[in-house]
Amino acid sequence: MKQALEGVKVLDFTQLLQGPYATQMLGDLGADVIKVERHGSGDIYRGMTFFNKWVAEDESPCFMAWNRNKRSISVDVKSEEGKKILYKLVETADVVMENFRPGVMERLGFGYETLKAINPKIIYCSASGWGDDGPYLTRPGQDLLVQSVSGAVMTSGKSTDGPVALGTALCDQVNALNSVYAILAALFYRERTGIGQEIKSNLLSSAIAFQMQDFFTIQNLGQTFTRPNSGIGHPGNGAPFGTYETSDGYITIAMSPWHKMVTALGDESLEVYNDPQTLYDKRDEIYYKIEAITKTKTTDEWLEIMLGLDLWVSKVNNQEDVEQDPQVIHNKTFVDIEHPKAGNVKVTNIPFTMSETPGKISRPSPMLGEHGPEILQEIGYSQDEINALESNNIITVERLNK
Amino acid sequence: MKQALEGVKVLDFTQLLQGPYATQMLGDLGADVIKVERHGSGDIYRGMTFFNKWVAEDESPCFMAWNRNKRSISVDVKSEEGKKILYKLVETADVVMENFRPGVMERLGFGYETLKAINPKIIYCSASGWGDDGPYLTRPGQDLLVQSVSGAVMTSGKSTDGPVALGTALCDQVNALNSVYAILAALFYRERTGIGQEIKSNLLSSAIAFQMQDFFTIQNLGQTFTRPNSGIGHPGNGAPFGTYETSDGYITIAMSPWHKMVTALGDESLEVYNDPQTLYDKRDEIYYKIEAITKTKTTDEWLEIMLGLDLWVSKVNNQEDVEQDPQVIHNKTFVDIEHPKAGNVKVTNIPFTMSETPGKISRPSPMLGEHGPEILQEIGYSQDEINALESNNIITVERLNK
Repeated sequence: MKQALEGVKVLDFTQLLQGPYATQMLGDLGADVIKVERHGSGDIYRGMTFFNKWVAEDESPCFMAWNRNKRSISVDVKSEEGKKILYKLVETADVVMENFRPGVMERLGFGYETLKAINPKIIYCSASGWGDDGPYLTRPGQDLLVQSVSGAVMTSGKSTDGPVALGTALCDQVNALNSVYAILAALFYRERTGIGQEIKSNLLSSAIAFQMQDFFTIQNLGQTFTRPNSGIGHPGNGAPFGTYETSDGYITIAMSPWHKMVTALGDESLEVYNDPQTLYDKRDEIYYKIEAITKTKTTDEWLEIMLGLDLWVSKVNNQEDVEQDPQVIHNKTFVDIEHPKAGNVKVTNIPFTMSETPGKISRPSPMLGEHGPEILQEIGYSQDEINALESNNIITVERLNK
Repeated sequence: MKQALEGVKVLDFTQLLQGPYATQMLGDLGADVIKVERHGSGDIYRGMTFFNKWVAEDESPCFMAWNRNKRSISVDVKSEEGKKILYKLVETADVVMENFRPGVMERLGFGYETLKAINPKIIYCSASGWGDDGPYLTRPGQDLLVQSVSGAVMTSGKSTDGPVALGTALCDQVNALNSVYAILAALFYRERTGIGQEIKSNLLSSAIAFQMQDFFTIQNLGQTFTRPNSGIGHPGNGAPFGTYETSDGYITIAMSPWHKMVTALGDESLEVYNDPQTLYDKRDEIYYKIEAITKTKTTDEWLEIMLGLDLWVSKVNNQEDVEQDPQVIHNKTFVDIEHPKAGNVKVTNIPFTMSETPGKISRPSPMLGEHGPEILQEIGYSQDEINALESNNIITVERLNK
């Protein structure tokens, strides 16, 4: 079966999280993603992990998570020979993506204007932390910092808490998604008109756009959100919207008609709160009254009672339990692939289906420069020239059993 | 200036948050989005708000946030005349999107097979809560419920907390982004091959894919994340990664070399922790030692000291302060537009720039069925026929000063 982005070549200068996630999404739908890695050591993310542990001795789970469906070439970008290789690759590329701090690509000789002169139809996406210029230009732009400046850390938890960060890379991942959105729209436009262009995305603008509804509310209703003092799930919502302890775990209750809720809980005295304003104003008081009741039965018992009344309810999974969830199993969300060094690894599948051009995981994350020789062959280098590049230390090629 | 999706017509059957955000993203880049609303009352989201308050009497900030750049037609989809209108619109549409529970569009007569028979090149995207079938098929699929089942609520906050939800619609918004990613890839493919297709996305798979790195780590390192007992920013990270109280607010510190950190804090005794394993194992102890020091100076003082040492640091904004942030002002993140009933409203701009085909906010959110008459004219209805449809209650048209 075909893939939607077959025939699209992406020259990928990205590293760490946001850029690699974006280009991986292009690879998942069939683009040929050539990851250009730093000579010698490669993507910095190869050297970072959690718990000080590694997959198969020295592979990073962070790197592996965001670099499937890519081929790697590791080149000394500061050498003349290295530049020549990359300029040659630009000639036939459709998309270039990078996420260095603003100005770095220009200094390396790979800025938009330079590459456009080589390939006028190129689509060039730069993803920065704060934007292309402005007061924070020289500051480090990183996910947790942007969660903080964008106000996202003040939306979760309780009003008695300090800032509460989301424990996954919210801003990196949202900006990866926005970058793909822009790149694909640009590819579509180029297919119609033949015209390429430059795209600039940044973590901060994406993090704010992600909270669009919340900012719209604050700015146009003139009232800001106040975090609850309980487990209410959104600072703008009233009871029962939140998560509640049961006798053996937690359940979550979303917007549900109050009268039915009272029936499910079996305490008629709660009927007095049946008014939207009261449910908002007294949300903490109501929350704890509900939780006193939910603690008396198991999660499964509550699901049966509440789903039977068509209330909006679910269980709460710990992350490690998610793969055993029956719907997750049914959806085939996790799949096994083979990695040359790590053997069998479990990865998250593409999160949607396409009837004609399904996403596909064709390759595990690459070893450093693994595909350098084949990529060089494709652009006309002879085996002798490739050997010379390797022995002259212009390219790095990691091999199995080395 | 042109827009990337000019000439693309989207027939939008979506409501509430995730679907409308997706189609708004298409409209932001120039697609003609025709929002098909329930006869009489329209999108349910028009009737929902925060704080029991409204913009300009009865406009919902939730609805307004996700429905700019769309035209609205409000049709009785169960009537024969209503169906005829929609089938006629399908003939010239490029994309159809819907986010009802699975099966609803088929029952209404607008399933993929039916619309494909009318327009074989149609791209049809269905966005559900849990997936197209499986054990949760009949359950309500809503953002907070999916945050819970996907484990996202167990990544934030402290280990002594219950589940902590992100206070914005994480799963809805991520699935909107994934749906746009799939739709644009399908449009690109159709432009090359002439072949349309069906796309199915769902909140649960998107929420899990969003935590791809975290699941990869848990499943392939065989160790799960444990939330800290302090303000550490990610359950897999050690100190100093987190948010800290200052004398007048909060600062956030991301990955920073420990020795420099100790220099900035001015307490040599902290040097003993200078080892990645120790920084992870004793993260809570270290966190509180750092915070005892950060509390002694203002946020601005710390920024000056730490940025001077090239440490990864930022301030923390409350959501209501974000629009005064100098970088946000520089980026022109918020812009004013005119709404026919509400007057001037402030909205979040498109989060990236495109040099050839910039995103543009051309229309405020529509009044219910506001564009029904002009849309009907475009597909050949006469003024008399349109008047008859309105007087026979087949279409609803909200007008100013009515």
